[in-house]
Amino acid sequence: MKHVNVGILGLGTVGTGAAKILKKNAALITKRTGCPIRLKKAADVDRSRTRGLSLPECVYTNDAASVISDPEIDIVVELIGGLEPARSLVLQALKNGKHVVTANKALLSHHGAELYAAAARHGVEIAFEASVAGGIPIIRTIREGFAPDRILKFYGILNGTSNYILSRMTDEGADFATVLRDAQDKGYAEADPAFDIEGIDTLHKLCILIELGYGIRVDYRKIYTEGISRITSLDIEHARELGYRIKLLAICRRAGSLIDARVHPTLVPEQHMLAQVHRTFNAIFLETADVGPTMFYGRGAGMLPTGSAVVADIMAIARTMRSACTHRVPLPLADASGSGLRLQPVKDIQSRYYLRLSVDDRPGVLSRIAGVLGRNRISISSVIQKGRTSRGGATVPIFMLTHEARESDMQNAMRQINRLALVRQKTMLIRIADEISGE
Amino acid sequence: MKHVNVGILGLGTVGTGAAKILKKNAALITKRTGCPIRLKKAADVDRSRTRGLSLPECVYTNDAASVISDPEIDIVVELIGGLEPARSLVLQALKNGKHVVTANKALLSHHGAELYAAAARHGVEIAFEASVAGGIPIIRTIREGFAPDRILKFYGILNGTSNYILSRMTDEGADFATVLRDAQDKGYAEADPAFDIEGIDTLHKLCILIELGYGIRVDYRKIYTEGISRITSLDIEHARELGYRIKLLAICRRAGSLIDARVHPTLVPEQHMLAQVHRTFNAIFLETADVGPTMFYGRGAGMLPTGSAVVADIMAIARTMRSACTHRVPLPLADASGSGLRLQPVKDIQSRYYLRLSVDDRPGVLSRIAGVLGRNRISISSVIQKGRTSRGGATVPIFMLTHEARESDMQNAMRQINRLALVRQKTMLIRIADEISGE
Repeated sequence: MKHVNVGILGLGTVGTGAAKILKKNAALITKRTGCPIRLKKAADVDRSRTRGLSLPECVYTNDAASVISDPEIDIVVELIGGLEPARSLVLQALKNGKHVVTANKALLSHHGAELYAAAARHGVEIAFEASVAGGIPIIRTIREGFAPDRILKFYGILNGTSNYILSRMTDEGADFATVLRDAQDKGYAEADPAFDIEGIDTLHKLCILIELGYGIRVDYRKIYTEGISRITSLDIEHARELGYRIKLLAICRRAGSLIDARVHPTLVPEQHMLAQVHRTFNAIFLETADVGPTMFYGRGAGMLPTGSAVVADIMAIARTMRSACTHRVPLPLADASGSGLRLQPVKDIQSRYYLRLSVDDRPGVLSRIAGVLGRNRISISSVIQKGRTSRGGATVPIFMLTHEARESDMQNAMRQINRLALVRQKTMLIRIADEISGE
Repeated sequence: MKHVNVGILGLGTVGTGAAKILKKNAALITKRTGCPIRLKKAADVDRSRTRGLSLPECVYTNDAASVISDPEIDIVVELIGGLEPARSLVLQALKNGKHVVTANKALLSHHGAELYAAAARHGVEIAFEASVAGGIPIIRTIREGFAPDRILKFYGILNGTSNYILSRMTDEGADFATVLRDAQDKGYAEADPAFDIEGIDTLHKLCILIELGYGIRVDYRKIYTEGISRITSLDIEHARELGYRIKLLAICRRAGSLIDARVHPTLVPEQHMLAQVHRTFNAIFLETADVGPTMFYGRGAGMLPTGSAVVADIMAIARTMRSACTHRVPLPLADASGSGLRLQPVKDIQSRYYLRLSVDDRPGVLSRIAGVLGRNRISISSVIQKGRTSRGGATVPIFMLTHEARESDMQNAMRQINRLALVRQKTMLIRIADEISGE
């Protein structure tokens, strides 16, 4: 093979990173692939985004369709993001016999099954290492490293923006809104941050990992998802006093034929490695039946880390093309290995809980609340009630940890507690991941 | 393809693990590979080792040569360990057109280049994920996940026995000999533990990672190697007072065309993730040019973790056979990507150092020692001299941290200091890895 031709759709951060790496590491890439990989076309509606790439004139185009129909292009790299036009372009590229590399977690979590089936039908590869945890090769690890093994559970810090905000709140005692504004100024958070801080981005990545790891199709709408926007510096401070850090986790645990999958802020024991994952870093703590506990840590975003994951996928496909084999590693969902598994409704999970209540500062309040919890089969393991104010009548916080309880019982208790006149704000509830363990 | 036939040589811990996994996970392995993988032969000189495997009568043999010459066997799995007869059997298997999977780090670190060349010549694969860090897929990560990237440096805890001993010394304040004896009783250390505790096993794994990561042939005899047998509970206690944990590390750092590679006990900052790797666990902290810092953590040994890595390699080759392609990922050393790189002599490294001196308890001692260090261009950053005894004339320890200094200067200073009459024991020197950083 003389060389492999690549066409990139979208020159945002990741597209620019991939193009830069293809250029600056060209000699290394050629040696390790066995042939040169050439960027033949790069499409973006915004010409100014090619600045800093010094692309030859003939490489830039504003017409994505011309890239996916170019008969010389072997691999189409979709880095536009979002659902449309990304979905249509990828489907057409697959239909045209192009291999596809994508970093698009929204697309895969919504339409993965359709895209994997199209790749199978047309005999081409679809690779997506960069869609989860940027520079950490977790997709490859699950598909190849743990190929003979069963994943029992995993806990992922998969969104750099949320982790950055929680880290700074923890380090500085700052409140959510202040850190978010600063993160937006620094470019670590979008102008509209809902996608990151409400857990949607983490949910998308969780869906991809479940489809890969368990071989079942997942409806993302059925997965309980809660973000970090209600976390206050009070929660962080009291979690710390109790020996925990608060992290936004993607959680997935298999028990028999049930998959318990959720996204929510979680109290992580401070000695656990996941508690040491700071700022914009990502990590996945994963436990399999045979290999046992493992952890994978690295940058979850950024031009070069994510760009490098994209280029690793391009090289994997180019290596496959040289050897004239495809689907060496079966496509996700292709092996039906997940038959019989199903998602567990969140109401059926068991967990310990952290509660922050905002209540009237008067006698008998604690017993009323404990009474509601008790009637719902929830027992309290510890309570911190901060010193009552002298003037009374004010609002004070109560912090509680519970013993293990059933989520449906806890939700019933929450509804009853929040209806009490003496409860002044909606109670904050954070689940505890005591069961995470590294050994 | 109907099925792929495997022959295992050696039914020790790893061989038994691989055989068990091939059996208990057979349905999953068949689905994910696209065809069944059958254990056709299992050879061991000791028949009793097949107990617990319930192998069919026709599978067991005591004749390894009959396995590598069996025309129906596609993949030979060498799990005998050591240099001979493993080397001859692997070479003959490759010559017979068999793919080879091995977990043998001693073999690869001594004869890797010869074996890789033989695999290339005969058009077959040689896979060795299980040779480094057991269940952690670090070989795959370097060859595929980081294919377009350059490794700048890595720090590995690669020997579970040494890490177990250091962990228990740290947790319990116990001394080396006591913990070693207990580890031997528990089966975590061999009757002859030299291989593990003197750093040889770590050195073998370091050599494999260097050949893979940098594409250069390495002479293991040129790599500075020091074990943990001289570490005392005093060193561990004082390292902890200074904010460090002592770990046996494989260190490799690239600077220009020089590779600084070493194995020795190292002071690791206590906040660093590597300091959180306890007991028999392994971890590799690795930094690349584009992806940046990453860490990979998991079990480095054990029947099922290492057996699973072996079976993952078998599956990778079986998947390749189904698609009729080999050397999709180039063999180590095949791409000449390391031309121009060479090992840096240890005398040229720069480091900070921890020193424990055992000296006469009398005035002027510290100034004599500081004088020797100063004349060798070494400056002291902190000193702990424990309270002098009332009676004088006794031996007391002095603990020092130095600023960054050159290894050759430090070795000269050590020779001069150890020659002083007031120095009663050979001075303990441990290098500090302040430069490790996760962000």
